[in-house]
Amino acid sequence: MNSLSDEYFMKQALAEAKQAASEGEVPVGAVIVCDGRVIARAHNQTECLNDPTAHAEMLAITAAANVLGAKYLTGCTLYVTVEPCVMCAGAIGWSQISTLIYGTSDDKKGFQQFAPKALHPKAIIKKGLLEDECANEMIAFFRNRR
Amino acid sequence: MNSLSDEYFMKQALAEAKQAASEGEVPVGAVIVCDGRVIARAHNQTECLNDPTAHAEMLAITAAANVLGAKYLTGCTLYVTVEPCVMCAGAIGWSQISTLIYGTSDDKKGFQQFAPKALHPKAIIKKGLLEDECANEMIAFFRNRR
Repeated sequence: MNSLSDEYFMKQALAEAKQAASEGEVPVGAVIVCDGRVIARAHNQTECLNDPTAHAEMLAITAAANVLGAKYLTGCTLYVTVEPCVMCAGAIGWSQISTLIYGTSDDKKGFQQFAPKALHPKAIIKKGLLEDECANEMIAFFRNRR
Repeated sequence: MNSLSDEYFMKQALAEAKQAASEGEVPVGAVIVCDGRVIARAHNQTECLNDPTAHAEMLAITAAANVLGAKYLTGCTLYVTVEPCVMCAGAIGWSQISTLIYGTSDDKKGFQQFAPKALHPKAIIKKGLLEDECANEMIAFFRNRR
């Protein structure tokens, strides 16, 4: 998968984040790609589902497992606009997703600080893809809520 | 809440774990108690739901939030037979559950080693309640699968 493809898929995740913002949800979006194809997409729905576990990554993992009929998402890539939290990183670990690509870091809740070994030991992690666009979604959202 | 009550609720969690085992699921059970009343109970369903996120704690938290109509479970106690993993500890943190009581430790996947700061900083953590019974469910399950 080349960087153009990565950017294409991250833009899909960004579209999910924008959808979240339009619904009053913290704007985080995620897509899961298998064999070059999006098999699941989701955005944060903690408010509308009234569920603290309904993060974009969690919903996307559950959906992807349904699509593949498999509990393990080996070989899949997860694109997410914001660094996953501890919960989501744990789920990514359980799902055995092979590659995680995220946009902007989350210094307050991100897994890299609080659960750095949560992912599968062979998982590839890339960060900073479309970082400014991903960060700006969050910044704009919280600015508007103040 | 006295120790008798704690034991009573952990036995309810153990009953969920036994139910999991009878369904071929890794035997972990959880209940969430609010004002002395069980408001949610669940067992691990990763196999039957084909979902790596369907741990007992996750399902119980989602159910409890539905019951209370609230995203935050402040004041609630989660009883779970096995030490939560990183994913579940992250969810417990997001839900702001006030007290976590677990039976047996999980040295391979438990949050205390891999994400020790995942819970709310004021959360109370107690471990070792009905430890042998909780551990024996796991030991018997994996012995039978070898």
